[in-house]
Amino acid sequence: MTGTLYGVGLGPGAPDLMTLRAARLIENAKVVAYPTLAGGSSFARAIAADLIPASAEEIVMDVPMTTAREPAQAAYDAGALRIAAALETGQDVICLCEGDPFFYGSFMYLFARLSTRFNVQIVPGVTSVTACAASAKRPLVARNERLTVLPGPLPEPELRARIDAAESVAIMKVGRHLAKIRSVLDGLGLTERAVYIERASLPEEVVLPLAQAPDNAPYFSMILLTKGSDPWL
Amino acid sequence: MTGTLYGVGLGPGAPDLMTLRAARLIENAKVVAYPTLAGGSSFARAIAADLIPASAEEIVMDVPMTTAREPAQAAYDAGALRIAAALETGQDVICLCEGDPFFYGSFMYLFARLSTRFNVQIVPGVTSVTACAASAKRPLVARNERLTVLPGPLPEPELRARIDAAESVAIMKVGRHLAKIRSVLDGLGLTERAVYIERASLPEEVVLPLAQAPDNAPYFSMILLTKGSDPWL
Repeated sequence: MTGTLYGVGLGPGAPDLMTLRAARLIENAKVVAYPTLAGGSSFARAIAADLIPASAEEIVMDVPMTTAREPAQAAYDAGALRIAAALETGQDVICLCEGDPFFYGSFMYLFARLSTRFNVQIVPGVTSVTACAASAKRPLVARNERLTVLPGPLPEPELRARIDAAESVAIMKVGRHLAKIRSVLDGLGLTERAVYIERASLPEEVVLPLAQAPDNAPYFSMILLTKGSDPWL
Repeated sequence: MTGTLYGVGLGPGAPDLMTLRAARLIENAKVVAYPTLAGGSSFARAIAADLIPASAEEIVMDVPMTTAREPAQAAYDAGALRIAAALETGQDVICLCEGDPFFYGSFMYLFARLSTRFNVQIVPGVTSVTACAASAKRPLVARNERLTVLPGPLPEPELRARIDAAESVAIMKVGRHLAKIRSVLDGLGLTERAVYIERASLPEEVVLPLAQAPDNAPYFSMILLTKGSDPWL
Protein backbone atom coordinates (compact mmCIF):
# COMPACT_ATOMS: atom_id res chain seq x y z
CA MET A 1 0.00 0.00 0.00
CA THR A 2 1.46 3.32 -1.09
CA GLY A 3 0.61 6.53 0.73
CA THR A 4 -1.62 9.38 -0.42
CA LEU A 5 -0.26 12.74 -1.54
CA TYR A 6 -2.38 15.61 -0.20
CA GLY A 7 -2.17 19.01 -1.90
CA VAL A 8 -3.38 21.19 0.94
CA GLY A 9 -4.48 24.79 0.35
CA LEU A 10 -3.61 27.01 3.30
CA GLY A 11 -5.46 30.16 2.27
CA PRO A 12 -4.08 33.68 1.81
CA GLY A 13 -1.84 33.92 4.86
CA ALA A 14 -3.72 34.32 8.14
CA PRO A 15 -3.41 30.90 9.79
CA ASP A 16 -7.08 30.89 10.83
CA LEU A 17 -8.15 31.24 7.20
CA MET A 18 -7.00 27.65 6.73
CA THR A 19 -9.83 25.10 6.49
CA LEU A 20 -10.62 22.67 9.29
CA ARG A 21 -9.62 19.83 6.94
CA ALA A 22 -6.24 21.37 6.22
CA ALA A 23 -5.57 21.93 9.91
CA ARG A 24 -6.44 18.32 10.81
CA LEU A 25 -4.22 16.91 8.07
CA ILE A 26 -1.26 19.05 9.11
CA GLU A 27 -1.66 18.30 12.82
CA ASN A 28 -1.46 14.58 12.04
CA ALA A 29 1.26 14.77 9.41
CA LYS A 30 4.20 12.35 9.42
CA VAL A 31 5.73 13.95 6.30
CA VAL A 32 5.20 17.51 5.05
CA ALA A 33 6.58 18.98 1.82
CA TYR A 34 6.80 22.59 0.65
CA PRO A 35 8.79 24.84 -1.69
CA THR A 36 11.16 27.59 -0.66
CA LEU A 37 12.23 30.35 -3.02
CA ALA A 38 15.98 30.67 -3.58
CA GLY A 39 16.92 29.31 -0.17
CA GLY A 40 14.64 31.75 1.64
CA SER A 41 11.87 30.92 4.04
CA SER A 42 8.66 29.27 2.92
CA PHE A 43 5.47 31.33 3.11
CA ALA A 44 3.42 28.11 3.05
CA ARG A 45 5.37 26.66 5.97
CA ALA A 46 5.01 29.91 7.91
CA ILE A 47 1.21 29.79 7.59
CA ALA A 48 1.11 26.24 8.94
CA ALA A 49 4.00 26.53 11.40
CA ASP A 50 1.98 26.28 14.63
CA LEU A 51 0.36 23.03 13.50
CA ILE A 52 3.30 21.04 12.11
CA PRO A 53 4.28 18.27 14.55
CA ALA A 54 7.89 18.53 15.74
CA SER A 55 8.33 14.87 14.76
CA ALA A 56 7.27 15.39 11.12
CA GLU A 57 9.81 14.80 8.37
CA GLU A 58 10.07 17.90 6.14
CA ILE A 59 10.77 17.65 2.42
CA VAL A 60 11.98 21.07 1.26
CA MET A 61 12.04 21.91 -2.44
CA ASP A 62 14.34 24.83 -3.03
CA VAL A 63 13.15 26.59 -6.18
CA PRO A 64 15.64 28.97 -7.81
CA MET A 65 14.45 32.53 -8.37
CA THR A 66 14.38 32.84 -12.16
CA THR A 67 11.77 33.19 -14.84
CA ALA A 68 13.49 30.43 -16.81
CA ARG A 69 11.47 27.26 -16.72
CA GLU A 70 14.15 24.56 -16.54
CA PRO A 71 15.85 25.28 -13.18
CA ALA A 72 12.51 25.45 -11.36
CA GLN A 73 11.33 22.28 -13.05
CA ALA A 74 14.52 20.51 -11.99
CA ALA A 75 13.71 21.44 -8.38
CA TYR A 76 10.24 19.91 -8.74
CA ASP A 77 11.76 16.82 -10.37
CA ALA A 78 13.99 16.35 -7.34
CA GLY A 79 11.15 17.07 -4.90
CA ALA A 80 8.86 14.62 -6.67
CA LEU A 81 11.49 11.89 -6.31
CA ARG A 82 11.73 12.43 -2.56
CA ILE A 83 7.96 12.59 -2.17
CA ALA A 84 7.57 9.43 -4.24
CA ALA A 85 10.07 7.64 -2.00
CA ALA A 86 7.99 8.52 1.09
CA LEU A 87 4.74 7.48 -0.63
CA GLU A 88 6.33 4.16 -1.65
CA THR A 89 6.94 3.32 2.00
CA GLY A 90 3.23 3.81 2.69
CA GLN A 91 3.55 7.24 4.28
CA ASP A 92 1.06 9.98 3.41
CA VAL A 93 2.68 13.26 2.36
CA ILE A 94 1.07 16.61 3.17
CA CYS A 95 2.15 19.21 0.62
CA LEU A 96 1.67 22.74 1.97
CA CYS A 97 0.33 25.20 -0.62
CA GLU A 98 -0.29 28.94 -0.26
CA GLY A 99 -3.83 29.84 -1.28
CA ASP A 100 -5.36 27.00 -3.30
CA PRO A 101 -3.24 24.20 -4.84
CA PHE A 102 -4.82 24.49 -8.31
CA PHE A 103 -5.06 28.29 -8.51
CA TYR A 104 -1.67 29.55 -9.70
CA GLY A 105 -0.08 27.09 -7.28
CA SER A 106 3.23 25.31 -7.69
CA PHE A 107 1.54 22.12 -6.47
CA MET A 108 0.40 21.42 -9.99
CA TYR A 109 4.00 20.71 -10.96
CA LEU A 110 4.05 17.90 -8.40
CA PHE A 111 0.56 16.81 -9.43
CA ALA A 112 1.74 16.48 -13.03
CA ARG A 113 4.65 14.30 -11.94
CA LEU A 114 2.94 12.08 -9.37
CA SER A 115 -0.80 11.81 -10.01
CA THR A 116 -0.53 8.99 -12.51
CA ARG A 117 1.35 6.77 -10.05
CA PHE A 118 -0.11 7.71 -6.65
CA ASN A 119 -3.43 8.59 -5.06
CA VAL A 120 -3.60 12.39 -4.85
CA GLN A 121 -6.22 14.34 -2.89
CA ILE A 122 -6.67 18.09 -3.22
CA VAL A 123 -7.88 20.21 -0.31
CA PRO A 124 -9.10 23.50 -1.78
CA GLY A 125 -8.23 26.72 0.02
CA VAL A 126 -9.33 30.34 0.22
CA THR A 127 -7.72 32.18 -2.70
CA SER A 128 -6.09 35.58 -2.54
CA VAL A 129 -8.85 36.88 -4.83
CA THR A 130 -11.67 36.53 -2.33
CA ALA A 131 -9.33 37.37 0.57
CA CYS A 132 -8.47 40.67 -1.13
CA ALA A 133 -12.13 41.42 -1.78
CA ALA A 134 -12.87 40.75 1.90
CA SER A 135 -10.02 43.02 3.03
CA ALA A 136 -11.03 45.77 0.64
CA LYS A 137 -14.73 45.28 1.48
CA ARG A 138 -15.47 45.19 -2.23
CA PRO A 139 -17.98 42.64 -3.52
CA LEU A 140 -16.47 40.83 -6.51
CA VAL A 141 -19.38 39.55 -8.58
CA ALA A 142 -23.15 39.20 -8.17
CA ARG A 143 -26.00 37.84 -10.23
CA ASN A 144 -24.89 37.32 -13.83
CA GLU A 145 -21.69 39.33 -13.67
CA ARG A 146 -18.47 37.94 -15.09
CA LEU A 147 -15.12 37.78 -13.32
CA THR A 148 -11.79 37.80 -15.15
CA VAL A 149 -8.57 36.89 -13.37
CA LEU A 150 -5.44 38.21 -15.09
CA PRO A 151 -1.78 37.81 -14.12
CA GLY A 152 0.07 41.12 -13.97
CA PRO A 153 3.03 39.86 -16.07
CA LEU A 154 0.85 39.70 -19.22
CA PRO A 155 2.03 42.06 -21.99
CA GLU A 156 0.54 45.56 -21.87
CA PRO A 157 -1.56 45.28 -25.06
CA GLU A 158 -3.11 42.02 -23.87
CA LEU A 159 -3.82 43.43 -20.42
CA ARG A 160 -5.48 46.46 -21.99
CA ALA A 161 -7.67 44.40 -24.31
CA ARG A 162 -8.64 41.91 -21.59
CA ILE A 163 -9.50 44.58 -19.04
CA ASP A 164 -11.42 46.61 -21.61
CA ALA A 165 -13.56 43.55 -22.46
CA ALA A 166 -14.08 42.46 -18.86
CA GLU A 167 -16.56 43.35 -16.16
CA SER A 168 -15.04 42.56 -12.74
CA VAL A 169 -11.29 42.07 -12.84
CA ALA A 170 -8.70 40.71 -10.40
CA ILE A 171 -5.08 41.34 -11.42
CA MET A 172 -2.74 38.92 -9.63
CA LYS A 173 1.03 39.01 -9.07
CA VAL A 174 1.20 42.79 -9.46
CA GLY A 175 4.71 43.26 -8.01
CA ARG A 176 7.11 44.92 -10.42
CA HIS A 177 4.35 45.20 -13.06
CA LEU A 178 2.51 47.92 -11.13
CA ALA A 179 3.63 50.84 -13.31
CA LYS A 180 2.52 49.02 -16.47
CA ILE A 181 -0.87 48.15 -14.95
CA ARG A 182 -1.37 51.72 -13.72
CA SER A 183 -0.69 52.98 -17.23
CA VAL A 184 -3.26 50.59 -18.69
CA LEU A 185 -5.94 51.54 -16.15
CA ASP A 186 -5.22 55.27 -16.52
CA GLY A 187 -5.58 54.92 -20.28
CA LEU A 188 -8.92 53.18 -19.86
CA GLY A 189 -10.14 55.79 -17.36
CA LEU A 190 -10.56 53.08 -14.71
CA THR A 191 -8.06 54.12 -12.02
CA GLU A 192 -10.76 55.50 -9.74
CA ARG A 193 -12.58 52.17 -9.79
CA ALA A 194 -9.49 50.16 -8.79
CA VAL A 195 -8.23 49.21 -5.35
CA TYR A 196 -4.74 47.97 -4.45
CA ILE A 197 -4.23 45.28 -1.81
CA GLU A 198 -0.97 43.78 -0.57
CA ARG A 199 -0.46 40.88 1.85
CA ALA A 200 -4.19 40.39 2.35
CA SER A 201 -5.20 38.96 5.73
CA LEU A 202 -1.71 39.38 7.26
CA PRO A 203 -0.95 41.93 10.03
CA GLU A 204 1.02 44.04 7.52
CA GLU A 205 -1.90 44.12 5.04
CA VAL A 206 -2.30 47.29 2.97
CA VAL A 207 -5.52 48.41 1.24
CA LEU A 208 -5.42 51.61 -0.80
CA PRO A 209 -7.11 53.29 -3.73
CA LEU A 210 -4.90 52.47 -6.73
CA ALA A 211 -3.95 56.13 -7.12
CA GLN A 212 -2.28 55.94 -3.68
CA ALA A 213 -0.51 52.61 -4.17
CA PRO A 214 3.24 52.55 -3.51
CA ASP A 215 5.60 52.52 -6.47
CA ASN A 216 7.24 49.31 -5.32
CA ALA A 217 4.67 46.60 -4.90
CA PRO A 218 5.56 43.19 -3.44
CA TYR A 219 4.84 40.00 -5.38
CA PHE A 220 1.87 39.27 -3.14
CA SER A 221 -0.20 42.23 -4.24
CA MET A 222 -3.38 42.51 -6.26
CA ILE A 223 -5.59 45.05 -7.97
CA LEU A 224 -9.37 44.62 -7.93
CA LEU A 225 -11.54 46.49 -10.36
CA THR A 226 -15.31 46.62 -10.73
CA LYS A 227 -16.86 48.53 -13.57
CA GLY A 228 -20.57 48.46 -12.81
CA SER A 229 -22.37 50.88 -10.57
CA ASP A 230 -23.39 49.33 -7.26
CA PRO A 231 -26.22 47.03 -8.32
CA TRP A 232 -26.87 45.45 -4.96
CA LEU A 233 -29.73 47.53 -3.57
CA MET B 1 -21.56 50.42 21.18
CA THR B 2 -23.24 48.67 18.27
CA GLY B 3 -22.34 45.10 17.29
CA THR B 4 -20.35 43.90 14.29
CA LEU B 5 -21.93 42.16 11.32
CA TYR B 6 -19.81 39.23 10.12
CA GLY B 7 -20.33 37.91 6.60
CA VAL B 8 -18.93 34.42 7.04
CA GLY B 9 -18.04 32.25 4.05
CA LEU B 10 -18.70 28.57 4.77
CA GLY B 11 -17.08 27.05 1.69
CA PRO B 12 -18.61 24.74 -0.90
CA GLY B 13 -20.57 22.39 1.34
CA ALA B 14 -18.39 19.93 3.26
CA PRO B 15 -18.41 21.29 6.83
CA ASP B 16 -14.67 20.73 7.23
CA LEU B 17 -13.96 22.99 4.26
CA MET B 18 -15.01 25.88 6.49
CA THR B 19 -12.12 28.02 7.77
CA LEU B 20 -10.97 27.92 11.40
CA ARG B 21 -12.07 31.55 11.72
CA ALA B 22 -15.57 30.80 10.46
CA ALA B 23 -15.91 27.84 12.83
CA ARG B 24 -14.82 29.88 15.86
CA LEU B 25 -17.24 32.71 15.06
CA ILE B 26 -20.16 30.32 14.64
CA GLU B 27 -19.38 28.34 17.81
CA ASN B 28 -19.50 31.58 19.80
CA ALA B 29 -22.47 33.14 18.03
CA LYS B 30 -25.28 34.78 19.97
CA VAL B 31 -27.17 35.69 16.77
CA VAL B 32 -26.92 33.98 13.38
CA ALA B 33 -28.66 35.06 10.17
CA TYR B 34 -29.14 33.23 6.88
CA PRO B 35 -31.43 33.10 3.86
CA THR B 36 -33.79 30.29 2.94
CA LEU B 37 -35.20 29.86 -0.53
CA ALA B 38 -39.00 29.87 -0.79
CA GLY B 39 -39.55 28.48 2.68
CA GLY B 40 -37.21 25.56 2.09
CA SER B 41 -34.18 24.63 4.11
CA SER B 42 -31.01 26.73 4.13
CA PHE B 43 -27.90 25.21 2.57
CA ALA B 44 -25.75 27.67 4.51
CA ARG B 45 -27.36 26.67 7.81
CA ALA B 46 -26.93 22.98 6.96
CA ILE B 47 -23.17 23.43 6.44
CA ALA B 48 -22.81 25.11 9.84
CA ALA B 49 -25.46 23.09 11.70
CA ASP B 50 -23.14 21.14 14.01
CA LEU B 51 -21.50 24.35 15.26
CA ILE B 52 -24.48 26.65 15.89
CA PRO B 53 -25.12 26.96 19.65
CA ALA B 54 -28.59 25.83 20.69
CA SER B 55 -28.96 29.14 22.50
CA ALA B 56 -28.30 31.29 19.42
CA GLU B 57 -31.06 33.51 18.08
CA GLU B 58 -31.66 32.76 14.37
CA ILE B 59 -32.71 35.46 11.92
CA VAL B 60 -34.16 33.71 8.86
CA MET B 61 -34.61 35.62 5.62
CA ASP B 62 -37.08 33.81 3.43
CA VAL B 63 -36.27 34.72 -0.18
CA PRO B 64 -39.02 34.01 -2.73
CA MET B 65 -38.04 31.83 -5.70
CA THR B 66 -38.35 34.18 -8.65
CA THR B 67 -36.04 35.87 -11.12
CA ALA B 68 -37.85 39.18 -10.45
CA ARG B 69 -35.68 41.50 -8.42
CA GLU B 70 -38.22 43.23 -6.19
CA PRO B 71 -39.61 40.35 -4.09
CA ALA B 72 -36.11 39.11 -3.20
CA GLN B 73 -34.97 42.63 -2.38
CA ALA B 74 -37.97 43.08 -0.10
CA ALA B 75 -36.85 39.96 1.80
CA TYR B 76 -33.36 41.45 2.26
CA ASP B 77 -34.92 44.77 3.33
CA ALA B 78 -36.83 42.95 6.06
CA GLY B 79 -33.80 40.87 7.06
CA ALA B 80 -31.59 43.96 7.22
CA LEU B 81 -34.07 45.60 9.61
CA ARG B 82 -33.97 42.62 11.98
CA ILE B 83 -30.16 42.38 11.77
CA ALA B 84 -29.86 46.14 12.40
CA ALA B 85 -32.07 45.80 15.48
CA ALA B 86 -29.72 43.14 16.91
CA LEU B 87 -26.61 45.20 16.06
CA GLU B 88 -28.17 48.25 17.75
CA THR B 89 -28.40 46.34 21.03
CA GLY B 90 -24.64 45.66 20.81
CA GLN B 91 -24.94 42.06 19.67
CA ASP B 92 -22.67 40.75 16.93
CA VAL B 93 -24.51 39.00 14.08
CA ILE B 94 -22.95 36.08 12.23
CA CYS B 95 -24.38 35.88 8.72
CA LEU B 96 -23.91 32.39 7.23
CA CYS B 97 -22.92 32.42 3.54
CA GLU B 98 -22.42 29.47 1.20
CA GLY B 99 -19.03 29.65 -0.51
CA ASP B 100 -17.59 33.15 -0.18
CA PRO B 101 -19.73 36.18 0.83
CA PHE B 102 -18.51 38.39 -2.04
CA PHE B 103 -18.42 35.77 -4.80
CA TYR B 104 -21.97 35.53 -6.19
CA GLY B 105 -23.24 35.59 -2.61
CA SER B 106 -26.50 37.06 -1.37
CA PHE B 107 -24.58 38.62 1.52
CA MET B 108 -23.76 41.59 -0.65
CA TYR B 109 -27.40 42.62 -0.52
CA LEU B 110 -27.08 42.92 3.25
CA PHE B 111 -23.67 44.56 2.92
CA ALA B 112 -25.18 47.22 0.65
CA ARG B 113 -27.88 47.95 3.21
CA LEU B 114 -25.86 47.86 6.40
CA SER B 115 -22.18 48.65 5.78
CA THR B 116 -22.60 52.42 5.92
CA ARG B 117 -24.14 52.26 9.41
CA PHE B 118 -22.38 49.33 11.07
CA ASN B 119 -18.96 47.73 11.29
CA VAL B 120 -18.92 44.81 8.84
CA GLN B 121 -16.21 42.15 8.68
CA ILE B 122 -15.95 39.65 5.83
CA VAL B 123 -14.54 36.17 6.38
CA PRO B 124 -13.59 34.81 2.95
CA GLY B 125 -14.42 31.20 2.13
CA VAL B 126 -13.43 28.47 -0.30
CA THR B 127 -15.38 29.07 -3.50
CA SER B 128 -17.11 26.40 -5.55
CA VAL B 129 -14.63 27.12 -8.37
CA THR B 130 -11.59 25.78 -6.58
CA ALA B 131 -13.65 23.10 -4.84
CA CYS B 132 -14.80 21.82 -8.24
CA ALA B 133 -11.25 21.85 -9.58
CA ALA B 134 -10.15 19.85 -6.51
CA SER B 135 -12.95 17.31 -6.97
CA ALA B 136 -12.29 16.97 -10.68
CA LYS B 137 -8.52 16.91 -10.09
CA ARG B 138 -8.13 19.54 -12.80
CA PRO B 139 -5.67 22.38 -12.24
CA LEU B 140 -7.39 25.69 -13.02
CA VAL B 141 -4.64 28.14 -13.92
CA ALA B 142 -0.85 28.27 -13.75
CA ARG B 143 1.86 30.78 -14.58
CA ASN B 144 0.40 33.58 -16.74
CA GLU B 145 -2.84 31.87 -17.68
CA ARG B 146 -6.11 33.73 -17.45
CA LEU B 147 -9.27 32.50 -15.73
CA THR B 148 -12.74 33.61 -16.76
CA VAL B 149 -15.75 32.93 -14.53
CA LEU B 150 -19.07 33.03 -16.37
CA PRO B 151 -22.60 32.54 -15.04
CA GLY B 152 -24.57 29.93 -17.02
CA PRO B 153 -27.65 32.16 -17.38
CA LEU B 154 -25.80 34.51 -19.77
CA PRO B 155 -27.33 34.64 -23.28
CA GLU B 156 -25.97 32.07 -25.74
CA PRO B 157 -24.18 34.54 -28.05
CA GLU B 158 -22.40 36.17 -25.11
CA LEU B 159 -21.41 32.79 -23.64
CA ARG B 160 -20.03 31.72 -27.02
CA ALA B 161 -18.01 34.90 -27.51
CA ARG B 162 -16.68 34.91 -23.94
CA ILE B 163 -15.68 31.23 -24.00
CA ASP B 164 -14.08 31.60 -27.41
CA ALA B 165 -11.93 34.49 -26.14
CA ALA B 166 -11.03 32.84 -22.83
CA GLU B 167 -8.32 30.43 -21.74
CA SER B 168 -9.48 28.62 -18.58
CA VAL B 169 -13.20 28.90 -17.95
CA ALA B 170 -15.48 28.13 -15.00
CA ILE B 171 -19.20 28.22 -15.82
CA MET B 172 -21.27 28.66 -12.65
CA LYS B 173 -24.98 28.10 -11.95
CA VAL B 174 -25.32 25.60 -14.78
CA GLY B 175 -28.68 24.11 -13.73
CA ARG B 176 -31.35 24.48 -16.38
CA HIS B 177 -28.87 26.16 -18.73
CA LEU B 178 -26.98 22.94 -19.37
CA ALA B 179 -28.42 22.26 -22.84
CA LYS B 180 -27.55 25.78 -23.98
CA ILE B 181 -24.00 25.52 -22.62
CA ARG B 182 -23.51 22.09 -24.22
CA SER B 183 -24.59 23.53 -27.55
CA VAL B 184 -22.08 26.39 -27.22
CA LEU B 185 -19.21 24.05 -26.30
CA ASP B 186 -20.10 21.57 -29.03
CA GLY B 187 -20.10 24.40 -31.56
CA LEU B 188 -16.67 25.51 -30.39
CA GLY B 189 -15.31 21.96 -30.46
CA LEU B 190 -14.54 22.12 -26.74
CA THR B 191 -16.80 19.43 -25.27
CA GLU B 192 -13.95 16.96 -24.83
CA ARG B 193 -12.01 19.51 -22.76
CA ALA B 194 -14.91 20.15 -20.37
CA VAL B 195 -15.79 18.46 -17.09
CA TYR B 196 -19.12 18.61 -15.28
CA ILE B 197 -19.26 18.75 -11.46
CA GLU B 198 -22.33 18.87 -9.25
CA ARG B 199 -22.49 19.32 -5.45
CA ALA B 200 -18.71 19.47 -5.13
CA SER B 201 -17.33 18.24 -1.79
CA LEU B 202 -20.67 16.76 -0.62
CA PRO B 203 -21.26 12.99 -0.30
CA GLU B 204 -23.55 13.10 -3.36
CA GLU B 205 -20.88 14.83 -5.49
CA VAL B 206 -20.81 13.95 -9.20
CA VAL B 207 -17.81 14.45 -11.52
CA LEU B 208 -18.24 13.48 -15.18
CA PRO B 209 -16.89 14.33 -18.61
CA LEU B 210 -19.34 16.90 -19.99
CA ALA B 211 -20.46 14.46 -22.68
CA GLN B 212 -21.79 12.17 -19.91
CA ALA B 213 -23.47 14.88 -17.81
CA PRO B 214 -27.14 14.30 -16.93
CA ASP B 215 -29.78 16.26 -18.85
CA ASN B 216 -31.16 17.76 -15.66
CA ALA B 217 -28.45 19.57 -13.75
CA PRO B 218 -29.06 21.01 -10.28
CA TYR B 219 -28.44 24.70 -9.57
CA PHE B 220 -25.23 23.81 -7.74
CA SER B 221 -23.38 22.49 -10.76
CA MET B 222 -20.43 23.78 -12.73
CA ILE B 223 -18.50 23.17 -15.91
CA LEU B 224 -14.73 23.61 -15.95
CA LEU B 225 -12.88 23.99 -19.19
CA THR B 226 -9.17 24.30 -19.92
CA LYS B 227 -7.98 24.91 -23.44
CA GLY B 228 -4.22 24.59 -23.18
CA SER B 229 -2.30 21.37 -23.41
CA ASP B 230 -0.90 20.26 -20.06
CA PRO B 231 1.90 22.78 -19.47
CA TRP B 232 2.93 21.60 -16.03
CA LEU B 233 5.77 19.23 -16.75
